[in-house]
Amino acid sequence: MGEFDLIRRCCTRARPSRADVLLGIGDDCALLAPPAGRQLAVSLDLLVSGVHFLADVDPWRLGWKALAVNLSDLAAAGAEPAWVTLGLTLPAADESWLAAFMDGFFALADRYAVQLVGGDTTRGPLAIAVQVHGFVEPGQALIRGGARPGDLLCVSGVPGEAAVGLALRLGRLELPAALAAPCIDRLECPEPRVALGRALRGLASAALDVSDGLAQDLGHLLDASGVGATLDVDALPRSASLQALGAAALELALAGGDDYELLFTIPPDRRDELTACAAAAGVALTVIGRIEAAADLRLRHADGRPCSLARSGYDHFA
Amino acid sequence: MGEFDLIRRCCTRARPSRADVLLGIGDDCALLAPPAGRQLAVSLDLLVSGVHFLADVDPWRLGWKALAVNLSDLAAAGAEPAWVTLGLTLPAADESWLAAFMDGFFALADRYAVQLVGGDTTRGPLAIAVQVHGFVEPGQALIRGGARPGDLLCVSGVPGEAAVGLALRLGRLELPAALAAPCIDRLECPEPRVALGRALRGLASAALDVSDGLAQDLGHLLDASGVGATLDVDALPRSASLQALGAAALELALAGGDDYELLFTIPPDRRDELTACAAAAGVALTVIGRIEAAADLRLRHADGRPCSLARSGYDHFA
Repeated sequence: MGEFDLIRRCCTRARPSRADVLLGIGDDCALLAPPAGRQLAVSLDLLVSGVHFLADVDPWRLGWKALAVNLSDLAAAGAEPAWVTLGLTLPAADESWLAAFMDGFFALADRYAVQLVGGDTTRGPLAIAVQVHGFVEPGQALIRGGARPGDLLCVSGVPGEAAVGLALRLGRLELPAALAAPCIDRLECPEPRVALGRALRGLASAALDVSDGLAQDLGHLLDASGVGATLDVDALPRSASLQALGAAALELALAGGDDYELLFTIPPDRRDELTACAAAAGVALTVIGRIEAAADLRLRHADGRPCSLARSGYDHFA
Repeated sequence: MGEFDLIRRCCTRARPSRADVLLGIGDDCALLAPPAGRQLAVSLDLLVSGVHFLADVDPWRLGWKALAVNLSDLAAAGAEPAWVTLGLTLPAADESWLAAFMDGFFALADRYAVQLVGGDTTRGPLAIAVQVHGFVEPGQALIRGGARPGDLLCVSGVPGEAAVGLALRLGRLELPAALAAPCIDRLECPEPRVALGRALRGLASAALDVSDGLAQDLGHLLDASGVGATLDVDALPRSASLQALGAAALELALAGGDDYELLFTIPPDRRDELTACAAAAGVALTVIGRIEAAADLRLRHADGRPCSLARSGYDHFA
């Protein structure tokens, strides 16, 4: 099968058909109609075989994840997803692999009414580039730089589960199937927190998505806001899978990476609103610390003892 | 140097600073303000080492070309360039290589007041993903599907020179330096025909950019328009470099690839306007054939004899 057949095969499945897509796949450019009075939020992410995913990963799950990690960036901005472009570098024109990949990609795209509007396909070492485009009301976008001393530090879901999934996949860890499966799902089919991001507009003072490890990504939020924080490690959410790992769970929760949860801050007098947010978004929210004027991140136990961490996060070039 | 230092180094040079960029590099998403009453044209292209460029290519020229091939897509749509995102996959954090690459990228970005607003950097086999974003007036975008029988078929510049440049770089061809240099420049530093695309709004009935070989890309225009064409191979523009190659020049001109010239059609009664267009765009324009109702592409000599071609274009998976 040639390049153009491959591309055509992807194109024919470019659902949904949005009214704001004037010209979709197949011309030199896609032509899009941004809604009046909204800002455009865009994010480009790369996924490279052996770096961001294991070469033998199920292609359906890879297609899902390639879009999910990008939608997670829109979620962190509080934006409503709209359009996506896809750049696929494939070692060979493998029709069944591509069909499964696109099935997973479209399964998630359909859920958020995101339309594939363009892209590129080429031969080379397996890699994926995805750019998402979303809309957000002026002044309502969530950014990293708005945290203020006194704000509560909150996180969605259970950071660390994806890292457990990776350790399981690499054979570095064993868990009973009932504890292993949810962690592998978190690794391979993360749920972008789009509804949470929308619910946090007007509430969160700062937000980002956790992709390289909670402690490291928190550092970016603190740097952007010009503040510090104390994080209560005993307040971190623990699923049954993490509890089964005992003390090792802490490092995975703080430095594991691949979580795609939202880390955000809210003013202390609005803590009560978290419950409604969690219900609207369908995900647990946990207060794990407090923003402070003094720079840097301090890790403490509930009783006040300091806690140290060997690894701080994932560096693609380290 | 770590990933975040690398990214920061790119960021600090994110010129120009456009008023429609509300939040640039460094957050989860860029926040952009599309102008009211304009459509958004977007295009994503991949460049993979060993497929789209030679691994030892000068990094400044590669940075230029990575943006140029994308701006060429905006040119083919008649759009005004505005924003760009960049995904860089690098085998190692090579500071001097990256600095030169970004210098070349920004040299072209500055020329068109295009701002780098976001992207991603990761470790892996050398590859580049670029997405450009431009604006076009409603109903004014150039598309592939508008050619009508009787329209004149036109091309900018000299298709085939880039293919000569590649043959020279691969040692498959030798030419005197004065003839070789312009071809290597065309291969490594193509000029996106942005001004031409803007000038063709309201004049061209169809347009695309020639990246995979003139004959093959013309086939896409004909398919999209539901028409055929006769191309006069003797009318194809010939530079001194191509003339020096004798009969071999024809196949390079028709099937060479990497030209990044615009191929377009105009109504026959508007031929006189080509001169002003060429002057405004600073590039030669040549009428090379005519659109016909009968499907398929016919290659003819000026005297009417048919002409056949062994290779029709470049297929990344062939």
